[in-house]
Amino acid sequence: MSRSIDLAVIPGDGIGQEVVAQGLKVLNAVLPQDVKLETKEYDLGAQRWHRTGETLPDAELEALKGHDAILLGAIGDPSVPSGVLERGLLLKLRFAFDHFINLRPSKLFPNTATPLAGRPDIDFVVVREGTEGPYTGNGGSLRTGTPAEVATEVSVNTAYGVERVVRDAFERAAARPRKKLTLVHKNNVLVYAGHLWKNTFDRVAAEYPQVSTDYLHVDAATIFFVTQPERFDVIVTDNLFGDILTDLAAAVTGGIGLAASGNINPTGAFPSMFEPVHGSAPDIAGQGKADPTATVLSVALLLRHLGYEAEAARIEDAVSADLAERDGATTRTTDEIGDALAVRV
Amino acid sequence: MSRSIDLAVIPGDGIGQEVVAQGLKVLNAVLPQDVKLETKEYDLGAQRWHRTGETLPDAELEALKGHDAILLGAIGDPSVPSGVLERGLLLKLRFAFDHFINLRPSKLFPNTATPLAGRPDIDFVVVREGTEGPYTGNGGSLRTGTPAEVATEVSVNTAYGVERVVRDAFERAAARPRKKLTLVHKNNVLVYAGHLWKNTFDRVAAEYPQVSTDYLHVDAATIFFVTQPERFDVIVTDNLFGDILTDLAAAVTGGIGLAASGNINPTGAFPSMFEPVHGSAPDIAGQGKADPTATVLSVALLLRHLGYEAEAARIEDAVSADLAERDGATTRTTDEIGDALAVRV
Ligand SMILES: CC(C)[C@H](C(=O)O)[C@@H](O)C(=O)O
Ligand SMILES: CC(C)[C@H](C(=O)O)[C@@H](O)C(=O)O
Repeated sequence: MSRSIDLAVIPGDGIGQEVVAQGLKVLNAVLPQDVKLETKEYDLGAQRWHRTGETLPDAELEALKGHDAILLGAIGDPSVPSGVLERGLLLKLRFAFDHFINLRPSKLFPNTATPLAGRPDIDFVVVREGTEGPYTGNGGSLRTGTPAEVATEVSVNTAYGVERVVRDAFERAAARPRKKLTLVHKNNVLVYAGHLWKNTFDRVAAEYPQVSTDYLHVDAATIFFVTQPERFDVIVTDNLFGDILTDLAAAVTGGIGLAASGNINPTGAFPSMFEPVHGSAPDIAGQGKADPTATVLSVALLLRHLGYEAEAARIEDAVSADLAERDGATTRTTDEIGDALAVRV
Repeated sequence: MSRSIDLAVIPGDGIGQEVVAQGLKVLNAVLPQDVKLETKEYDLGAQRWHRTGETLPDAELEALKGHDAILLGAIGDPSVPSGVLERGLLLKLRFAFDHFINLRPSKLFPNTATPLAGRPDIDFVVVREGTEGPYTGNGGSLRTGTPAEVATEVSVNTAYGVERVVRDAFERAAARPRKKLTLVHKNNVLVYAGHLWKNTFDRVAAEYPQVSTDYLHVDAATIFFVTQPERFDVIVTDNLFGDILTDLAAAVTGGIGLAASGNINPTGAFPSMFEPVHGSAPDIAGQGKADPTATVLSVALLLRHLGYEAEAARIEDAVSADLAERDGATTRTTDEIGDALAVRV
């Protein structure tokens, strides 16, 4: 039997190129001989925009559709007006490919630094909605640039969109040992969206009696992230709250150098996209200082999504082992960390 | 010369009653003999709603207008549908009295517990916008309760509203030793509101060359709150981001038992309102377990707002001294902490 993975690679901006190279190195090392890996690189990001003014032309969006999955490094550069690449490329991909599950696991690996005293036992996953909320781009501005300007942002939430992410989160919670799901929203203020989320959550919960449930306002959730993160197992939340909470989660579990994510369309209608949570970090780009671990862990999520569970687990074990042996005193380069992980898998 | 303070008191729900009693105790103790303090209690909150179905009737809103300031305990109870009291009472007051500055100082006092390793030196203040953003109540739901439901929340931002809070924040930053102001938003995604905030911030910054400025996305800001909180001096941000960040700030500076806030209308057109950041904590209500320090510190903000700077400072010094001597081993009751602070001021 011959198997294959046809992977689109978007290195993107800043440290994107460097970390993606290590992700591919580990991917090549972990894949069994019989799996044919094909990769095609897409030149998208700040440089392309400066050269051509394009963020994501239709032809390339079409071409990307044909791949099994996408590996993305990082998007964004201070030389480009804020929002142009984020809305025109990264979010365009998430929306065009209906990535309604933005999956972000958070685990405090042994021997990694955390800013939290007492090193709590952190191992949860945030299921962030990926196609609705304040990310839809709805809104506008009137009398722009005048003292009478009004600018709006509309958070759009549909029963369709909320139910599918809530169901996915219940499935994930049911499959984990602790079987606990927390809904995070702000339903005491955002009453319309909040009621839709809470009612949907409660209704679906009735189908999962084995899953224990919990609700927290987003502000209160940030408190527990630092005082009692061990209380969380699976969290389901909206696009913006998920964005905020997962950066905080990354910070308390050793930094965004370790945080992986998957933009997943579980139906398979479009390719899913995997990327580290961190940004393009232009200040350290090209210096071999970036930690590629988050990208490597994103490759594990990619493999799991494509059905290569054993290979995904091997990568995660390799990262665990590598972190356990990391010596705070020696700083390794991006390349050295990639090599070390490739050897282990 | 005879002076007077005509104070409205809204104890509210849960631990509100207990903590407000201690706030008033310390207020009475700190005020000079010649200042006549009059207080009038307003019965508003969950019990009132259960009894009469009212949250904040017009007559009481009118009556509240006549006071010099308002001291509020906490609003909210699980027996009341989420949003009813928050929107109908707490937010109604903030909006009706145009409390556009929601002031939230964050300081890690000596000898207090923080979940952060290394006890960083934290002393910043968040100037949260209080009358716009996703808190306006704009939005709605269509086909409510059906599989075709759409629920929206509209964040409304005006040049008028953004400029006044940004100016206030620059004034506060200019008056502090470090003179540093950070704008927090998410202008790479919420581009319409983000551009209004960023452009206004940059324009006003030109008038304050002595203030150094900085911009952070809200997700990145949460990272710095736990990894490098000492970098912040004054933060200005929108209503929802401010809500989230100040709970996190409270958590890293020893808990919401210590976090004070002022809902301020600096024009004096309406009374300003002072309240602890914490909620009504129904689980510990009536047990004498609530820490009234946040309310006492809110009384200090109230006094400063009314021009009693020396008295405000005496309360803050008393809290510092009290915390420095607190012995983690002994748990004092709400009343005992109030007594200790009243004696010190
Ligand atoms: C770059 C930005 C548009 C993006 C987001 O807000 O989703 C990022 O912060 C993330 O979390 O993936
Ligand atoms: C109770 C709630 C409406 C309120 C808010 O969201 O502003 C609270 O969280 C706060 O921070 O004062």
